[in-house]
Amino acid sequence: MLQNITVIGSGSWATALVKIFSEGGLLVNWLVRTQEQADHIRLNSKNPRYLCNAELDARFINPTPHIKDALTNAHVIVFAVPSAYLKASVEKIDKKMLADKKLVVSIKGFVPGTGYIPSVFLRHHLNKAEQVTVISGPCHAEEIALKRNTYVTIAGEDERRTTELANCMNLHYIKTTVSDDPIGIEFTAILKNIIAIANGIANGLNYGDNFQAVLTSNAMREVEIFLHEVYPGKRDLFDSAYFGDLLVTAYSDYSRNRTLGKLVGRGMQVHNSLHSMGMVAEGYNASKELEPLLKKMAITLPIINSTFRILHQHANAYHEFKLIEKNLR
Amino acid sequence: MLQNITVIGSGSWATALVKIFSEGGLLVNWLVRTQEQADHIRLNSKNPRYLCNAELDARFINPTPHIKDALTNAHVIVFAVPSAYLKASVEKIDKKMLADKKLVVSIKGFVPGTGYIPSVFLRHHLNKAEQVTVISGPCHAEEIALKRNTYVTIAGEDERRTTELANCMNLHYIKTTVSDDPIGIEFTAILKNIIAIANGIANGLNYGDNFQAVLTSNAMREVEIFLHEVYPGKRDLFDSAYFGDLLVTAYSDYSRNRTLGKLVGRGMQVHNSLHSMGMVAEGYNASKELEPLLKKMAITLPIINSTFRILHQHANAYHEFKLIEKNLR
Repeated sequence: MLQNITVIGSGSWATALVKIFSEGGLLVNWLVRTQEQADHIRLNSKNPRYLCNAELDARFINPTPHIKDALTNAHVIVFAVPSAYLKASVEKIDKKMLADKKLVVSIKGFVPGTGYIPSVFLRHHLNKAEQVTVISGPCHAEEIALKRNTYVTIAGEDERRTTELANCMNLHYIKTTVSDDPIGIEFTAILKNIIAIANGIANGLNYGDNFQAVLTSNAMREVEIFLHEVYPGKRDLFDSAYFGDLLVTAYSDYSRNRTLGKLVGRGMQVHNSLHSMGMVAEGYNASKELEPLLKKMAITLPIINSTFRILHQHANAYHEFKLIEKNLR
Repeated sequence: MLQNITVIGSGSWATALVKIFSEGGLLVNWLVRTQEQADHIRLNSKNPRYLCNAELDARFINPTPHIKDALTNAHVIVFAVPSAYLKASVEKIDKKMLADKKLVVSIKGFVPGTGYIPSVFLRHHLNKAEQVTVISGPCHAEEIALKRNTYVTIAGEDERRTTELANCMNLHYIKTTVSDDPIGIEFTAILKNIIAIANGIANGLNYGDNFQAVLTSNAMREVEIFLHEVYPGKRDLFDSAYFGDLLVTAYSDYSRNRTLGKLVGRGMQVHNSLHSMGMVAEGYNASKELEPLLKKMAITLPIINSTFRILHQHANAYHEFKLIEKNLR
């Protein structure tokens, strides 16, 4: 039976996962950046920097800046760092130390410069025979801190393992679902961040609710087309891990991606917008990594294509949205 | 060529339609309730009571409280009254006067006590050989007053006619699409109002964004199941008239249905909530009319069923949402 788990990452989402696992009955080794941070968590039962309002139960959490300590006793390792840092995080760890571990990833976005989604990157990089499990779903970490009702999906090829992990995450405010489509779910998480930026741009350009609804509905069609091309198979896009995840990001003001889009839509230069936010907006890099894949697959996704041109090719947001307008229906 | 049109109704949506048609180059006969209201519109270029911020061009609008005047010269008659008043509105008109007219309806909701959607009701009631055209889409009238970009769908069996009407509605802020699925579109408009109430209830019960996204995504599946049962056929639910319409209502704070749900979710009695709003929330009646249809079709739609029980059977919102929670995925 699963008793120990390791969480790698100390941002908002990693903190939310630590909270969930520890309340779900697991002992959590938590790899954080510094000894100071670890001490703070131990003393104050809170992460000092991210999701600071989340109460953590320090009795079941072992925060440490040392990877060796963090891996002690745990056979399941959860990577929950921003996608931009996954490569560096993994490279810091001696591969041998991960040889007998079951890997789980809860990261939204491509691993920059690789074209890989996180689960595939980890599997390749660490020469794992089995698929890496994916935790996803429409989850603002901020709402988990407030114990607001949230649906989480655990996706992987081995149903026994996904179910075991899911059982450790069921709380009165967390409902879990298991799925056998980690790849479709990870790609959806990538697309939805780009779509959230597009929604933000529309908002910044002063389009209203009527337009945003049409934009989002048409964007769902783009997700459907893309998933069908990249990884055909039976999936129900109305499950929370697909459109639920898209909706929470596209419509919520918590979304960093939406915020980035708003700034760009209002006319701020893209690099200034990124700089002013001080947080990573996953959709920015995702848009860049996705482009060659779309070219290779020879599919046109008007909203996603325009967002790429605005973010990475200095295209004018106003004009790109005039193009998008024509393709919506 | 279409030159004259009659609009029946003087609420927000009718006012928005009058604005669109008159700016689109048509002469609009507008049936309003009183001579006073007609005079006010003629003098001030504004509807005194609804959508008062919408500038109208009185040169192209003939407001009148007399049905005979309103039907003069026009061969196309657009009904845009709340569904609760459609029956009474039609009964006031001598059937013979409508015999040679092409009918259009832009009403969201069942005609109370009939189980009919508006287009089918009009067709039966007036013994029309041809299908009634439907105007729908994700449209807050308030955003049309502000000339914010909006998508409108014209649905009917005769493509020549729907296209002609669509051409009269194309403005720089209005994009039109034609469709051959008026019935699927009218049913979607009914379901989305019920779903908007459900979203409002969730909000009132203090569920957060994570939950609302999952609720909405699962509700889309209920729409898909329902439409497939009630009127099978090829349709793309990502077109604006389906999920676009659902999203704008479910997520927007302009939505009366969402407002009703919020009040109920916060614990106000349903009849007090309705009373306090002073405006019709179409989803309330829609929920009641839909129930026997769902029973007859023997399909279970957990979100829509629970909303019915809360609105019409004194079921406790908190407990019904605990049931819904279990069925979401």
